Amino acid sequence: MEENQKKCYEIAERIYDLDVKVYESVGSALGRTFTDDRQTCVENLTRLMTLRPQGHLLRSELALISNMARTIKDEEVKAEVMTEYDAILKAVAELPDGFGKVDILNKKRAKLNTARTKKKFKKGDHLVICIGRTQGSAGNDIGFALADALHINYYDVEILQEVLKRLDVTNDAKVSGDKDQDGLIEDKYQKNFGEAKGLKQKLHDFNRYHGLNKDDAIFFNQSDLLCKMAKEEDFVVMGRCADVILANNHIPHISIFITAPFEQRVKRYMEVNNLSLKQAVHELKKMDKKHRKYFQFYSGVKWGDAENYDICFNSASYGIEDSVEIIERMLNKIPGVSWNKKEA
Amino acid sequence: MEENQKKCYEIAERIYDLDVKVYESVGSALGRTFTDDRQTCVENLTRLMTLRPQGHLLRSELALISNMARTIKDEEVKAEVMTEYDAILKAVAELPDGFGKVDILNKKRAKLNTARTKKKFKKGDHLVICIGRTQGSAGNDIGFALADALHINYYDVEILQEVLKRLDVTNDAKVSGDKDQDGLIEDKYQKNFGEAKGLKQKLHDFNRYHGLNKDDAIFFNQSDLLCKMAKEEDFVVMGRCADVILANNHIPHISIFITAPFEQRVKRYMEVNNLSLKQAVHELKKMDKKHRKYFQFYSGVKWGDAENYDICFNSASYGIEDSVEIIERMLNKIPGVSWNKKEA
Repeated sequence: MEENQKKCYEIAERIYDLDVKVYESVGSALGRTFTDDRQTCVENLTRLMTLRPQGHLLRSELALISNMARTIKDEEVKAEVMTEYDAILKAVAELPDGFGKVDILNKKRAKLNTARTKKKFKKGDHLVICIGRTQGSAGNDIGFALADALHINYYDVEILQEVLKRLDVTNDAKVSGDKDQDGLIEDKYQKNFGEAKGLKQKLHDFNRYHGLNKDDAIFFNQSDLLCKMAKEEDFVVMGRCADVILANNHIPHISIFITAPFEQRVKRYMEVNNLSLKQAVHELKKMDKKHRKYFQFYSGVKWGDAENYDICFNSASYGIEDSVEIIERMLNKIPGVSWNKKEA
Repeated sequence: MEENQKKCYEIAERIYDLDVKVYESVGSALGRTFTDDRQTCVENLTRLMTLRPQGHLLRSELALISNMARTIKDEEVKAEVMTEYDAILKAVAELPDGFGKVDILNKKRAKLNTARTKKKFKKGDHLVICIGRTQGSAGNDIGFALADALHINYYDVEILQEVLKRLDVTNDAKVSGDKDQDGLIEDKYQKNFGEAKGLKQKLHDFNRYHGLNKDDAIFFNQSDLLCKMAKEEDFVVMGRCADVILANNHIPHISIFITAPFEQRVKRYMEVNNLSLKQAVHELKKMDKKHRKYFQFYSGVKWGDAENYDICFNSASYGIEDSVEIIERMLNKIPGVSWNKKEA
């Protein structure tokens, strides 16, 4: 018998013996998972363990034993049985073919995921939370409250536009050599993003964006801005394909999608905006379509599809306040404590 | 001026003054959000506050000021400014039309959501975690590991079938009056679910399920079992539309959907089951289709759609171990501490 098979056989014997022990302690034939004779059962179990495809069946057998074991009334016997159960689980997990061995983790993706428990923040990493949302799901409210709770900046489309507009003013001032505006160099946005774009750079940009429509030019400007910001500060950003842009540029972030059932969103949208049912339905569908189109055009993946985000959230199940707290907990932040005190 | 408008006007003045203060402290014209004269700006802000539709614009203006305020170098001035900012936010939130007032919370849904921070467990409530998943996303591995970490039972389709089979044996024994099997009455499953179904009940069941195909009969049997279990014990259950069944029966639970990008799932599925790319793709699509069909047939809502779950999870972003820990954190459980110590 080869080494691995021998190990499997030994574990199979332990599983069978555990089942017998649980059966004796519970005192009912219904408590018994394996009803065949010892030899047959152990051989079947060994087969389950050596043939990978049946991994989930072995798990089911083990779960049946442990579910039953938890009903044992004698606490001492129960503790003894559960200890052996844990030891068996560990032994199975250590088998080269044990279940749970083949992880689903995407290393590249996980490396960029700042909400993992095992990932330590490095110096220079920033907490960047990208939030996508359906219209009326209170996603913006949650994003804004979350930024406030974490004491970090909040950016939505209006703010990003405003920041870009200010940068343009600064750049134009620089290019035209307006000395009166030199004091502006101390400004944060100026410092971070507006570094002395000379005429040469301007021409380069012009050539780069030449032939693009205005939307594309704005998208690229915002993308550049987001990447620069993500290297400088912690923030929450709403929409803008920020998650995809940052992933493509290998910049750590967390991607969250917030939604709620359509009827719930309609109900809220009517109330917030004082609209009729018909108006609200029309408006929601229009805005969702707009966001979907934008996201899919620039990202190439499906908007709102769970596999394209780290986490999706149903705001109808939590409400605004609770959503913020659950996200804080996921980030392992105790509510109220500033994020900035992170490891160097 | 009516009461509410007067309040809005006062807050608008405070916002304008805060912006001026931030502008002076940062020392740059770019730090200024409002560039018009005081009167015009305050009137515009008041309008933003009294007309609800512009709620998000007011939020953007405020975020711009606070983003800028966080760059103030003098810590004392910064603290002063941020205190006033917080006070303004609070004042806005207290307005009858303030943003964040209209929550997205669905009260009925939230009442059943055991992962909310505000919801206290009542005596008799149980921690029931319903997990849906795409094939190959390691959803079952995460569910099994989660149950183990929380020291609660784990049920998948095989285990539920096994439990039902055992119940059938018990019931048949009862009906046929087999005295030798009476000892079985002490058994857990018997106690909970098999209570003395007489011949009358049997006939009732027969009539009830008459005309249904085998799948439907199994579904209804499993549904009954799940509802009974959820009133008796804490557990993790995989698939079976458990979330929808429990919601329809007003039984508290948490619904989670686990998925991962298709390519990642294919990669894992090939490795776990030793399949070719073609086989894995075929098998994944077939199983996803089967689960989708089953869920949609019995639930009437779309499988894997974020709005139909409390939370969706991308296992590729976390891996098995981290997924378990993140879910534990969401539940506000410190990993390793048994759930059972809950409030009475």
